[in-house]
Amino acid sequence: MIETPYLLFLGDAPDQLAAKVAQGICDWRPDNAVGQFRMDGCKADLGLTDMTLAEAKAAGARTLVIGVANRGGVISQAWKKVLVAALEEGFDLASGLHSLLRDEPDLVAVAAATGQSLHDVRVPEVKYPIADGRKRRGKRCLAVGTDCSVGKMYTALAIGREMQARGMKASFRPTGQTGILITGDGVPLDAVVADFMAGSIEWLTPDNDPDHWDLIEGQGSLFHVSYSGVTLALIHGGQPDALILSHEPTRTHMRGLPGYALPSLEDLRDMSLALARVANPDCQVVAVSVNTKAMSEDEAIAYIAETEARMGLPVTDPFRFGAGKLVDALAAI
Amino acid sequence: MIETPYLLFLGDAPDQLAAKVAQGICDWRPDNAVGQFRMDGCKADLGLTDMTLAEAKAAGARTLVIGVANRGGVISQAWKKVLVAALEEGFDLASGLHSLLRDEPDLVAVAAATGQSLHDVRVPEVKYPIADGRKRRGKRCLAVGTDCSVGKMYTALAIGREMQARGMKASFRPTGQTGILITGDGVPLDAVVADFMAGSIEWLTPDNDPDHWDLIEGQGSLFHVSYSGVTLALIHGGQPDALILSHEPTRTHMRGLPGYALPSLEDLRDMSLALARVANPDCQVVAVSVNTKAMSEDEAIAYIAETEARMGLPVTDPFRFGAGKLVDALAAI
Repeated sequence: MIETPYLLFLGDAPDQLAAKVAQGICDWRPDNAVGQFRMDGCKADLGLTDMTLAEAKAAGARTLVIGVANRGGVISQAWKKVLVAALEEGFDLASGLHSLLRDEPDLVAVAAATGQSLHDVRVPEVKYPIADGRKRRGKRCLAVGTDCSVGKMYTALAIGREMQARGMKASFRPTGQTGILITGDGVPLDAVVADFMAGSIEWLTPDNDPDHWDLIEGQGSLFHVSYSGVTLALIHGGQPDALILSHEPTRTHMRGLPGYALPSLEDLRDMSLALARVANPDCQVVAVSVNTKAMSEDEAIAYIAETEARMGLPVTDPFRFGAGKLVDALAAI
Repeated sequence: MIETPYLLFLGDAPDQLAAKVAQGICDWRPDNAVGQFRMDGCKADLGLTDMTLAEAKAAGARTLVIGVANRGGVISQAWKKVLVAALEEGFDLASGLHSLLRDEPDLVAVAAATGQSLHDVRVPEVKYPIADGRKRRGKRCLAVGTDCSVGKMYTALAIGREMQARGMKASFRPTGQTGILITGDGVPLDAVVADFMAGSIEWLTPDNDPDHWDLIEGQGSLFHVSYSGVTLALIHGGQPDALILSHEPTRTHMRGLPGYALPSLEDLRDMSLALARVANPDCQVVAVSVNTKAMSEDEAIAYIAETEARMGLPVTDPFRFGAGKLVDALAAI
């Protein structure tokens, strides 16, 4: 529904992590990203060609995707100038921000005048049910994190890619704007009304073949006080058979919460499993997925070996070293 | 803002529990309820005088309050006839259902024609922040339940009444439609967008005097897969100093989930406390509040004594026997 390929708008991203939407598209659908558009002061860089709107248009880009997330999701006046110019240049706009393109009168007016489309992928377009907790056929895997933004989506995408390479039945089930922009559908869970969160995940992961895996994109963390409720709805609506623990070893405090330390992997394991077994008594913690982007290869290998010994579980960085170990663990249950 | 007194509309409630909104108003603001309106097949009864619309009008009622909750919250055609007639009779309408009065074209048209108001108390009217987890001054108490609808709101209201009688500083903080209809303000938590749930509770319970108690209305249960995410947002946004465990001893399975057993009070204590200490390391479980409505007085007394011995905590039914024990426990921390 969203026309490809994209020009990825990074705005004035304060750091690389703020551009994780664009990074995700770039990593998982590189053919869809012809270039990046950065404003003065932008601290993110995807390594794509920096393009003006006209250059990107000439290179074939059809949609300007806002690939940067602000805290609170506001569309600033500085951004607005670029967005208006993009519409006038003949781009559609796509966004996963809480602040909607459709709520900006100037964007709506320019889009109407130019005949371009505004896509707000964060807006739920389905009337989700209240969760009924009924056991569903098929298998489900969920990554749960010690913190937000530790690699849960990448873990699910990497597992999906590996399962498909092995001829296994698998579907990546997006629950956030990046995943939705990558695959074209999913549940924008953080924008779902509270009472329907768990039901939206039941809807997203319906009955399936007994040997089919739903790879559900994780969100937040049980230990992140801003978003923990979203995480628990995902655990109970998803009724996973398998949990994968996700962690970023160099994080010094919970993202956005300077006073909050990260939990240990052991605490995450015990808390997640106890809660997951409310919905699925057979749930198991099968592996650990580590995001080692900030570590050298030697450091990463050492950390993985140490963690594997300590936790008694398969451990890897699926983005750096492949998802083989994780898929082996899932195939074994 | 909602004009009192009320005529309480019970519709075709399938059981007494479905009328808990009306029951709450009736129990905590009896002066506001002049009578009840029941349709054919209604299985709920508040013990109020059954009135026609004309009789209620003559008795002084100003607003027809929809005091019954359906699963999914739909406004049926059978109800619609009564609601239209009520507007024509000169009543305002107030509702806490997910389906909004304002989304029903016929009600909107009749309200406009008659000059009456439609109040949807479930709709958030504030742009809530994302939770920042900052420690706030003042004390906070939250009731957490083994299940939904076990008496968490009553517990908070009863504690508030007892604290005020003792001259303590206390505020009841509603998080659901009944509480909002009782007090006139609060956060309709189950209708808040997922990302802002915890932030809405921080907003509801701001910095206060060191000896002031916020008595936060609980919602759902960590063990109820349909609503557990809402409960966890309440625990992390509320950062309670004190938890009170709420339980209804005769419940045979989780409400609405026939395949799900209730957790033990010990499981509730351990899970709630571990999660609450993420936001407030000093949090304590101070007491147990039991809803003994379905038990004889002898049974209730025996159950309370047995539970007190087993849990090593003060236990009572605050609605039946008063909230003194609970307030004693809170005053001691």
